[in-house]
Parts: sequence; structure tokens; C-alpha cells
Amino acid sequence: MSANTHINAPTQFIEAGSIRFAYRKIGKPSGIPILLLGHFRATMENWDPTITEGLGQDRSVILFSNTGVGATSGKTPDTVLQMAKDAIMFIEALGLKQLDLLGFSLGGFIAQQITIIRPDPVRRLVLAGTGPEGGEDMAAYPDHVTKAAINEIPVLEDFLLLFFSQSEKSQQAGRDFWERRHLRISDVEPASSMETMGAQGKAIAAWGVPGSSYSQLNKINQPVLITNGNNDIMVPTSNSYLMFRHIPSSKLILYPDSGHGFLFQYPSEFVSDVREFLNQAL
Amino acid sequence: MSANTHINAPTQFIEAGSIRFAYRKIGKPSGIPILLLGHFRATMENWDPTITEGLGQDRSVILFSNTGVGATSGKTPDTVLQMAKDAIMFIEALGLKQLDLLGFSLGGFIAQQITIIRPDPVRRLVLAGTGPEGGEDMAAYPDHVTKAAINEIPVLEDFLLLFFSQSEKSQQAGRDFWERRHLRISDVEPASSMETMGAQGKAIAAWGVPGSSYSQLNKINQPVLITNGNNDIMVPTSNSYLMFRHIPSSKLILYPDSGHGFLFQYPSEFVSDVREFLNQAL
Repeated sequence: MSANTHINAPTQFIEAGSIRFAYRKIGKPSGIPILLLGHFRATMENWDPTITEGLGQDRSVILFSNTGVGATSGKTPDTVLQMAKDAIMFIEALGLKQLDLLGFSLGGFIAQQITIIRPDPVRRLVLAGTGPEGGEDMAAYPDHVTKAAINEIPVLEDFLLLFFSQSEKSQQAGRDFWERRHLRISDVEPASSMETMGAQGKAIAAWGVPGSSYSQLNKINQPVLITNGNNDIMVPTSNSYLMFRHIPSSKLILYPDSGHGFLFQYPSEFVSDVREFLNQAL
Repeated sequence: MSANTHINAPTQFIEAGSIRFAYRKIGKPSGIPILLLGHFRATMENWDPTITEGLGQDRSVILFSNTGVGATSGKTPDTVLQMAKDAIMFIEALGLKQLDLLGFSLGGFIAQQITIIRPDPVRRLVLAGTGPEGGEDMAAYPDHVTKAAINEIPVLEDFLLLFFSQSEKSQQAGRDFWERRHLRISDVEPASSMETMGAQGKAIAAWGVPGSSYSQLNKINQPVLITNGNNDIMVPTSNSYLMFRHIPSSKLILYPDSGHGFLFQYPSEFVSDVREFLNQAL
């Protein structure tokens, strides 16, 4: 059985509860799979082929759209907790007894929540550009950031502002990412709806309300890799350091001259760092 | 020409100014060399063979003893600045036009200082378990830490307290390191003198006096990899995060369940992370 590429992996569907989940499998069809959980408004089209295929060199990489997102049916819930429960339903429907999770941004909130409420199947956890419940400066954004983030049809300029630093190198990396992420042209998901955006926005705002003691974090017993850019304006970088200090078995990697989209800026380095983490004996 | 191992690399000497410097070359005798700068009281015997030979897979790894340390002649200076000037004298005597630096602890202070006062030959910089001039909580230690650090003949128990976490896994890694670092039994350096300890202690105390604006750090233009354990009681981990925020092209990696000696606890992972950093195109 040959490996699916990012471009040719067929969109598949599986029913769980009353939801019909859209998903794709990329890479080697064996080994402990890794499930990728995406950012605010993202569908499966928002991932970087360099990352999905890079990680797919030694494992099965599963993309999916959660309830109400992209081609998945249902109404997007407005809490991180319910999103986590829906993702667990999807994981169980696929019959996965053990898997790794990679959560980016909102996907990182959900990945933490899954690991806290259903730790057993989760072997290792990668948190990218994300923060803990009640983290630092996660409850409000400057106006120009909000404006770009809720633009009805997101354009390159929005991503360059929200995901990349202002250096020419970072901006160019952003344009390169934009090209890579549009390489898949058939069997693509519809963009998320404005309704989904509203529900996710509500979930993110509630997650960001300050005042947590982070007591949930030290219940995470899995090895965790925490990653971010040095200047993330969506989920401030200090939250990665904060999670590192509270999650017992965590390793922290922060990348230079980059923002929320650091993983799309340094996809090869990110893949190398994540593979080292996932493959090492502990 | 076959590569020298940690065990068999002969101690060599080179004169610079009025000093006769002891040094060794390990690994591949080509490529851009990396100079290792060691910790408080360390001689060349205090490095980990897994690290020196691991890095030596694709470059020449140079160990040396600075003025007054180990088998090197002269009187150990009592400022980081003079230690940096002496190291530069050694680098120039070897005729090295370009090199990488890896500074651990006190060696990291010196490596920063070299890079600030003589940036030209320095290609990339690895800072391990170290902090900036005037960093956080670097001016004083708890009594039991000081007592172990100045023990006239350092023993395993001192290293286990100072360099490793209190978990059984970390302590075992410490014992394993202790065995590795005693594998070389012939042509070894004498331990550093009490005089050297006093001078280095004075230099470290002066470096740690708080109140710096860290304005020197943003003059470092080289790519820098900053690394530490999650709970370093010698140079608190917060200083690694602090350097990361001030050095423009820096990447930060912090390791779980470890202290000052994280690199000796995770030598293979550290080698992998450092090689990725040194070998990558930028």
C-alpha cells in the first residue's frame, strides 16, 4: 500500500453519533498515527504539505474537520470542552486505541482538553502556537488583529499579518507557505462558515478568560513538546513558557523571528524537531 | 586521517602571549570547528564523550583549558572579560578564521563575551545552562548549593545535587554520566586549583550582579541556540528565556525533568538538537 500525499489523499467520511466527519490519511499507513487539530476557522486545506508529508515519513498523519467545520456535518459547538468530546467521538469511531496529537492554536486548546478528559489513548502530545486555559493575554486582541482574523474571505495579507513576523524573511516564508497550501486543487473542503467562526470565537474567548491556577496542566502525564514563534500575536509566546513550567514531562522549543505561523515558516525544522520527539525512546 | 575519540585524543599545547594552552581535537578533522567552553572548575575531563564524539561526527570538536585551568599555564583571571580575551588569544594562535562556540555555564558567559567583543570569527553560538550578564537570581546561591560547588575534591554526590533533578531517572542519568566522564584514564589533566576556583567564583559573582539592561545581547547577530534544563539551580532557567527574548536570531530549547547538567542527562538528544542547529542552511 503506497503512502498518500497531501495532494492526493482522498477525503473520507465516518459517522460518529449524529455527525459525519470528514478526514484524510497522509503518509505511511502504519505505526502509531498522529491526529492534527487545526486553528481558528481552519479546514484540512489549512495545513502545510511539507509538514503533513514530513511527519508522514514514519507514521500515518490524520487530518480531520471537527463538528460543523468544512465538509463535516453538524453545528460547531461553542466550547472547547464540547469540541474535545466530539474529537474523542471521532477518534473512537476510527477505532484508534493509541495515537499522538498535534494541536495548533485552537487545536492546541482542544488537544490539551482531550488529554485531560481522556488520557488513555494519547501517547504523546505536540502543542504548537497555543496556550493554557486562562493563559496570559489570551482574552483580547488589538483591533487590527481582530479585523484580519474575522475577514469573511481570508486573504494572503491577513495570514501575513496574523501568522508571520514583519521581517522580509518571515513575510517571504508566508508567501511560500500560501503557495504550498494551495497546491491541492481537487477534492477540497468548503471554507468554514461565518456561523462556525462565531462559535469558535466564543469558545476561544471563554478559554482565554484569565484567573486559572493551571492545575489541569500538571495532570498531563504524557511527554509533551511545546512549540511557538518568538513573537506570537494570536496566542502570546509567554503562554508556551507558562505551559512548559506546569506540564511535568514537557520540552519547549521556541523559534526565532516568527509568529503564530512559525511551523509554516520553518516547516522542515519543525518536522525534524517533532519527529525527534515522537521517535525517541523515553 | 582518522578521527580522534574522546578517550584517545592527545593533549596538545600551543603558546599564545605568555600562556601555554592545553587543548584536544576530537572528531572529524575537517569542517568548521566548534570550540567548547566548560563550567566552573571544569577541565577537559569534565565533558561528556557522548557529546564530544556526537558533535564530532561532522566537525572538529576542540576542547581547551583557559588560562590557569587544568594543564594550561598562567594565573586564572577573575573577570569574564579577561577570560574571553584569553580565549580569543587561543583561537587566534590556532589560526581559526571561523568557528562555532558552545559555552556551558561559566563557559556560556565567556562565549557571549567573545561574541560581543570579537564577533567576526564566530559563525554560530550554542549557549547551555547559562545566563546573561546581570541576569535573574544569578548573584547568590543557597548554602547547600555553595557548599557542594566549592567542595575541594568534587564527588559524584555533588554533581548529582548541582547538575541533576531529584527524580530517580535524572539521578540515574547523573550516575551514568559520571561513568562516561571517567572513561579516559591516561593523559588526563590535573584538577583545577583552589586558586582557580576563587578567581572563577569572583568572575561569576561579578557577572551575576543584577541591573543590566541586556543591551549587549541584541548586538549578537549570529544564530544562537539557547538550551537548559527546566529547573537549573546553578543558573536559573528563566535566564535562558530572558536571553531568548533579547538575542534576535535565537532558538530556545528547554528539556524536561532536568537541571544544570541537562546536556549530560540527554546527551543524544542534545547532540541531535545541536547538530540540527549547526548544520541547517539559514
